[in-house]
Amino acid sequence: MATIKAFVFDAYGTLFNVHSVIELCNRLFPGQGEELSEIWRSKQLEYTWLRSLMGRYVHFGKVTEDALVFACKHLELTLDESMKERLMEEYKKLRTFPEVPEVLKLLNGKKRVIFSNGSPDILKPVVHFNGLDDHIDDILTVDDAKVYKPDPKSYTVVLEKLHVKREEVLFISSNPWDAAGAKSFGFHVAWVNRNNKTMDELNQSPDIIVSDLYGVLQI
Amino acid sequence: MATIKAFVFDAYGTLFNVHSVIELCNRLFPGQGEELSEIWRSKQLEYTWLRSLMGRYVHFGKVTEDALVFACKHLELTLDESMKERLMEEYKKLRTFPEVPEVLKLLNGKKRVIFSNGSPDILKPVVHFNGLDDHIDDILTVDDAKVYKPDPKSYTVVLEKLHVKREEVLFISSNPWDAAGAKSFGFHVAWVNRNNKTMDELNQSPDIIVSDLYGVLQI
Repeated sequence: MATIKAFVFDAYGTLFNVHSVIELCNRLFPGQGEELSEIWRSKQLEYTWLRSLMGRYVHFGKVTEDALVFACKHLELTLDESMKERLMEEYKKLRTFPEVPEVLKLLNGKKRVIFSNGSPDILKPVVHFNGLDDHIDDILTVDDAKVYKPDPKSYTVVLEKLHVKREEVLFISSNPWDAAGAKSFGFHVAWVNRNNKTMDELNQSPDIIVSDLYGVLQI
Repeated sequence: MATIKAFVFDAYGTLFNVHSVIELCNRLFPGQGEELSEIWRSKQLEYTWLRSLMGRYVHFGKVTEDALVFACKHLELTLDESMKERLMEEYKKLRTFPEVPEVLKLLNGKKRVIFSNGSPDILKPVVHFNGLDDHIDDILTVDDAKVYKPDPKSYTVVLEKLHVKREEVLFISSNPWDAAGAKSFGFHVAWVNRNNKTMDELNQSPDIIVSDLYGVLQI
């Protein structure tokens, strides 16, 4: 991998812990925070795939809100407008996984980029909230392609914005389906397997598997 | 809906109960049948969406097998070749929901069609196994489009094979995302909500909601 010109990080689940929302979920709906967060996240992903397939793209903030509404209906929780707003605001305050700030600093001098499903309205605030502005060189989003990962058109945004070739990118994601999609596209891929997850059976294998972002420093 | 020329039924979850496999799952992996079946089904769907987005279509039998392999790895169950074969054979022996044979008979004289993600190798046997050959006029599959629902190109197979217009189709599915996808495509849609499920938040509403297929007879 001598040719790597950019370290491109997925955001949600890779840099930022989407389950940071559990705390507020639990305050609003005592005892149901974990389940609410799980359903919220899994539906959020489903809706990115389904809307992409249907040709009905809407930005990630809207998908995230729709998934929250579904999750509350499914669990029979009453979600009023102010609760919805508060929970959506949490998406701008997701916390990084512990090692993230240090690893990004240690990669100083390399091109460090975020490439995410997230729309700029929620992605830029969470980078700023975590004090990472100086340690991220570029924030790229599928919103420029109007289709979500793992559609190849989404990953193409990285090539167009960074003026690099596929094989010059090391794409780093903890989401198995995203690692598979990026590998299928032609990136070098590091899969961050934080919690002993199972790789998806999509006939695509990441180039390397690391247990957290420190592993990326070895490359 | 005076113009309906074809009653087009989704197969898995709508006519056939995918969780018929629980019995054999439990015999092979005592006590884990229900969880195995749940993960198997949810991954099967995910993989249809992900592979469609990635442009990596493989037929439904393969997707179903891949999802089974994932589910067993995830649950740390050892799946040998003979167990895999036996479980895959079960997909040709899924049982209908109780009212299905009677409703199909009562619709005699109307055009009764299956349109499914299923590839012919597993779909035709399950229709035959349940004695439905005489009560289904056509079996259509996304395999002719090489992309899965809810991509509009998949639903187009129905128009091309039946020589009908979108608004002449009543599409009947119990899968919320499929009901949404078909509605987005332009079919009339009946959503069969058997188990008090929650409709997906995809900005598409079915024309009618019925609790089982008897409801379709009222139309």
